[in-house]
Amino acid sequence: MGRHKIYLDKLSRTFQVRNQLLRQGLAECLGTLILVMFGCGAVAQLVLSGGSHGMFLTVNFSFGFAATLGILVCGQVSGGHLNPAVTFALCLLGRERWRKFPIYFAFQTLGAFLGSAIIFGMYYDALWDHPENFNMSDTQSTAGIFATYPGPHLTILNGFFDQLIGTAALIVCILAIVDPYNNPIPQGLEAFTVGFVVLVIGLAMGFNSGYAVNPARDLGPRIFTAMAGWGMEVFTTRNCWFLVPITAPFLGTIIGVIVYQMMVGFHVEGDVRDKREAAQQNERVRLNSISTNDHNKEKEVS
Amino acid sequence: MGRHKIYLDKLSRTFQVRNQLLRQGLAECLGTLILVMFGCGAVAQLVLSGGSHGMFLTVNFSFGFAATLGILVCGQVSGGHLNPAVTFALCLLGRERWRKFPIYFAFQTLGAFLGSAIIFGMYYDALWDHPENFNMSDTQSTAGIFATYPGPHLTILNGFFDQLIGTAALIVCILAIVDPYNNPIPQGLEAFTVGFVVLVIGLAMGFNSGYAVNPARDLGPRIFTAMAGWGMEVFTTRNCWFLVPITAPFLGTIIGVIVYQMMVGFHVEGDVRDKREAAQQNERVRLNSISTNDHNKEKEVS
Amino acid sequence: MGRHKIYLDKLSRTFQVRNQLLRQGLAECLGTLILVMFGCGAVAQLVLSGGSHGMFLTVNFSFGFAATLGILVCGQVSGGHLNPAVTFALCLLGRERWRKFPIYFAFQTLGAFLGSAIIFGMYYDALWDHPENFNMSDTQSTAGIFATYPGPHLTILNGFFDQLIGTAALIVCILAIVDPYNNPIPQGLEAFTVGFVVLVIGLAMGFNSGYAVNPARDLGPRIFTAMAGWGMEVFTTRNCWFLVPITAPFLGTIIGVIVYQMMVGFHVEGDVRDKREAAQQNERVRLNSISTNDHNKEKEVS
Amino acid sequence: MGRHKIYLDKLSRTFQVRNQLLRQGLAECLGTLILVMFGCGAVAQLVLSGGSHGMFLTVNFSFGFAATLGILVCGQVSGGHLNPAVTFALCLLGRERWRKFPIYFAFQTLGAFLGSAIIFGMYYDALWDHPENFNMSDTQSTAGIFATYPGPHLTILNGFFDQLIGTAALIVCILAIVDPYNNPIPQGLEAFTVGFVVLVIGLAMGFNSGYAVNPARDLGPRIFTAMAGWGMEVFTTRNCWFLVPITAPFLGTIIGVIVYQMMVGFHVEGDVRDKREAAQQNERVRLNSISTNDHNKEKEVS
Repeated sequence: MGRHKIYLDKLSRTFQVRNQLLRQGLAECLGTLILVMFGCGAVAQLVLSGGSHGMFLTVNFSFGFAATLGILVCGQVSGGHLNPAVTFALCLLGRERWRKFPIYFAFQTLGAFLGSAIIFGMYYDALWDHPENFNMSDTQSTAGIFATYPGPHLTILNGFFDQLIGTAALIVCILAIVDPYNNPIPQGLEAFTVGFVVLVIGLAMGFNSGYAVNPARDLGPRIFTAMAGWGMEVFTTRNCWFLVPITAPFLGTIIGVIVYQMMVGFHVEGDVRDKREAAQQNERVRLNSISTNDHNKEKEVS
Repeated sequence: MGRHKIYLDKLSRTFQVRNQLLRQGLAECLGTLILVMFGCGAVAQLVLSGGSHGMFLTVNFSFGFAATLGILVCGQVSGGHLNPAVTFALCLLGRERWRKFPIYFAFQTLGAFLGSAIIFGMYYDALWDHPENFNMSDTQSTAGIFATYPGPHLTILNGFFDQLIGTAALIVCILAIVDPYNNPIPQGLEAFTVGFVVLVIGLAMGFNSGYAVNPARDLGPRIFTAMAGWGMEVFTTRNCWFLVPITAPFLGTIIGVIVYQMMVGFHVEGDVRDKREAAQQNERVRLNSISTNDHNKEKEVS
Repeated sequence: MGRHKIYLDKLSRTFQVRNQLLRQGLAECLGTLILVMFGCGAVAQLVLSGGSHGMFLTVNFSFGFAATLGILVCGQVSGGHLNPAVTFALCLLGRERWRKFPIYFAFQTLGAFLGSAIIFGMYYDALWDHPENFNMSDTQSTAGIFATYPGPHLTILNGFFDQLIGTAALIVCILAIVDPYNNPIPQGLEAFTVGFVVLVIGLAMGFNSGYAVNPARDLGPRIFTAMAGWGMEVFTTRNCWFLVPITAPFLGTIIGVIVYQMMVGFHVEGDVRDKREAAQQNERVRLNSISTNDHNKEKEVS
Repeated sequence: MGRHKIYLDKLSRTFQVRNQLLRQGLAECLGTLILVMFGCGAVAQLVLSGGSHGMFLTVNFSFGFAATLGILVCGQVSGGHLNPAVTFALCLLGRERWRKFPIYFAFQTLGAFLGSAIIFGMYYDALWDHPENFNMSDTQSTAGIFATYPGPHLTILNGFFDQLIGTAALIVCILAIVDPYNNPIPQGLEAFTVGFVVLVIGLAMGFNSGYAVNPARDLGPRIFTAMAGWGMEVFTTRNCWFLVPITAPFLGTIIGVIVYQMMVGFHVEGDVRDKREAAQQNERVRLNSISTNDHNKEKEVS
């Protein structure tokens, strides 16, 4: 046992990464990998089993709880964003530094890429067994395991609005959960609550185009499918749909931040500030009166 | 970063609302918006996808967890009622002031109106794609996305009883959760528990007419559908059914309050009061005996 | 407001029940009412909607979370048993007094009776609309909304074993959750955990005869159906099946108590006792040595 | 009551096991029994009811929450591994002693054996009623209630990879949950979180071969089926598939441990070590300076 522990300690010292930003990037990468591995895995199970081992509800549960688990794995190190839109929202509010944003985005996309690669390997036989194995059919069913594609009824404008609203809803809920002036849930349950948010978005907003609401979660797997055999059509299909889940979420984030701050955030924050300033004011008045008293006493004395 | 923070601070001061009642109204509005957006969104997903992306269970989950999220977003500011029946119950018990009731009712209805408008926009293409797009058919399927309509088997009397019992059950459970003398769950988990209550009501009491059990959640979206193209028929259909989910919940609230207080509430409250009064009694006896002793001592001294 | 509070206070004093056992009985009654109202309501929704508004999973969720809510409503007052088998287990282990058992059993059965009556009223129109309204058909589908009946494949012996094992599994899990020497979960989450136990029993052990595992939950609604129009056949059908869910659970409770105590309970309890006795032993030794020292000192002094 | 307590105390002393390893083995046995009883019970309910009382989602829920309950029952005594792969991971990381591994493996397999025996007894009538009662058909449907078999599309190589990835994912999540340097969740909620991990693995990775990811959970029930009537074919079928869920999970555990430690574990652990060493360094510097000061003072004095 003793030698085992010494060996583990040596390993730990060898591989320890001391650069904080790299460490956070690695953690985000693993977290997003878990999110996409479990999330896209559930879509794969649904599509490849032809419905016998899944339904849309299982995809929703899986993405929701996968978000929870991803946040639990990396939250202590990197904050557990798993989503460039969340990083963007926190940068907008001045709670994270802007230079984190490109690093997080890159590592999140890498994690999503790796997560979809794992699912590809895991269901390789089942993919070959599926009638539409690596082709881009009209329904994009196998490509849709990894990245999102719009439903046949959807125009590009409505699709943009769909992603915008979905992300705004996500951001409003996440801001409420992590707002330091409005902390509604016990320490440690944030990850579970975010999981419920993702679950509910899937239950209510998943029909149009599969609720990416996350540029990294969509882009990473899409790059993977382009490389793994579906070809560049994954980018060009449906009037370059792939741009929508990359751009709309950031606009949705801005709207979500504004809505939350205007309707709840500014007021609870202002309330705390008002109380602090009133306390300071009182303190100043007290000090003034003390010094005046002292002055008076000095006068009396003199 | 410095300039960013200063700018945010200035924004925060500009938009801060200092009137507490208005602030609470805005918070209730956002909370109810979230409830209806996710709840009615799940109904829309079920109806418009023809069952491929939803089922009645997903609607139940979505309304339940949407209630949780709505409460989390606004609970610290306004208490997170999201439902005029809940406000009414707390007024009845003297825990909220009566003048809050109309304000909350109005903002809750506004939030429900806005929530259904968002879902309308999000699923606009899908609504046009649906065979029965903006018409009031016999089954009210698309109008039923937003407001509730009774099932074909339901008489108006049974429907009234249905809403009455559903609201009474909701209120009994919520009173138990928030009763200060019977606090059964850890601080911060109330929102989740209320979500389970709404989920269970949907699982057990949703078949007759879709468990509105909330006048604002039903009235706001109904007004929206009347304006958005379904016409005034949303009010007149089925013998003015729309009056039932507005009136029955308040009667159900009264029954729920009476049942909970008679079977649990008065006794736990009375228990606490008995102990406090016994303590006061003891204190008085002790003080009496002390003063008597003092008197005796005084006598002895004199 | 002032007058409102005075009036409430007067009401509270008028209706306060001071007899503790009666108070606990009333609370158990309300808790079991909630369990059966939501649980049987979900069965009714499944059966009467012909599967469009429910499935077996929704029944499982509903019974599980209904147990959670029932316990939350009455747990602080009566312990939240909701089940004579649970009361029996706690009496067996000496944690509740035996005289509580008949009182709790009676009030639990009354609550189950009232809960099924509420569901009967709520779905009255839907029951008349169902082809097999108040008749005892071969499948007992409408009668099966309220009480449990064995599946066609089940012999009475296997049915007895089914109820016995189901209750034993329930009791093992509940004993682990409430064991004072093995407290695995945070204070206040017991109700949720018991809900999960009931959910899992329904998922895994519900096919044979509908997992009553609770004499009161089965007997109360069965008496109600006998009175409400299904007739005495609810007792006589399938060789007096109704006796099985009343008797087997108590035998299962004994087995569950033995299994848990033999495999976990006695050892964790004994561990605590060993430590306490060792501490007492040390204390005695120390006192002895002190007194011996004192004796020696006295000797020295003398 | 007095005599009852004395009798219970005597029983407790008689059956108390004082050997800690045996006690832990018994607890693991009961925990794994619960996991397999509820998990395989849900598969039985799905298969034997022909889908009317279950679906793949109910199996996922049941295995997930059964893991939670199994951990709650035995966690305080034995750590609640329920899975030799988990024991193996903790031994690898030096958190459990290696000699525990064979003991835990044996008792976990015994528990899984007993759990499947209980389900066999419970659904004995239903098994006889099933067209393919005790035969090994091509689909292994009844044998598949107890142990796992690969889907028809799966090669042995892909199946090995499937089990390897599934276990690695399980171990990464569990290590994050129990990592003492990265404790993301409140004390007491570990069991629930592990349940969600098992649920998500089932939702996303269950289509290929039924996600054993646990050598004991697969081997115990397989031995039982061999004895109960399905014969030795349970071992030989599909090119000795039974070896895959026994061997692949251990390889997957190694990969999971490496991935977690390289991407998160070593860095958070190293961070704590760095801080401790820096504090020690400071302390040493301070002591040095003190002793130097003392020296100087001594010099001055002298």
